Amino acid sequence: MTDGISLAEKLSTFQDHWSPRTVAAFNDNDVMVVKVKGEFTWHKHDETDDFFLVLKGTLDIELRDRTVTLGPGELFVVPRGVEHRPVAREEVHLLLIEPTGTPNTGDKATAAPRKLA
Amino acid sequence: MTDGISLAEKLSTFQDHWSPRTVAAFNDNDVMVVKVKGEFTWHKHDETDDFFLVLKGTLDIELRDRTVTLGPGELFVVPRGVEHRPVAREEVHLLLIEPTGTPNTGDKATAAPRKLA
Repeated sequence: MTDGISLAEKLSTFQDHWSPRTVAAFNDNDVMVVKVKGEFTWHKHDETDDFFLVLKGTLDIELRDRTVTLGPGELFVVPRGVEHRPVAREEVHLLLIEPTGTPNTGDKATAAPRKLA
Repeated sequence: MTDGISLAEKLSTFQDHWSPRTVAAFNDNDVMVVKVKGEFTWHKHDETDDFFLVLKGTLDIELRDRTVTLGPGELFVVPRGVEHRPVAREEVHLLLIEPTGTPNTGDKATAAPRKLA
């Protein structure tokens, strides 16, 4: 069992973008922090909903029919099967929660490996 | 599908303590916000880990052998089966995530009903 986990402290341990770090796990979910900047690839997760909570900055989640814009303290769940593309015009810090083992692009072939912070 | 969900806006819609409001759901988890103040009851969840993220204030999570103190942006997962008691000396705002249907006291007989914010 660990003590309390500071998201800011975990975020201070790395600088690279689009590479989530797992900071905790519960009920077979991974809790991750990630720094993002620029455009990710269009993708979807056929089996899992995709949870985003913005900690810092402003994130656009582009959907095929509209864009959801999130600031700090705002969250959005992309339902399974829905194509989306996260876009960060400046660096954005996010909390992500996904079932353990979910590839971040929806495709194991192109997904970033899971890392511990 | 909803647009972005502001945790602060959801928290502004109610004042009562220890009564979580569900603000989103993903992968059969409920995402909840709650205001707490004072001492909750000692309890445990036999089947589920208990995720706490502090949004505002300082929360003590008393365990039988020690106390974990969390400030804003800090999280803790109480593992399943571990007795704990949340204590908030001043009002604290929390983000909680639990499998849909989990009673907040670990016991359906004493649990607060789930409400939507």
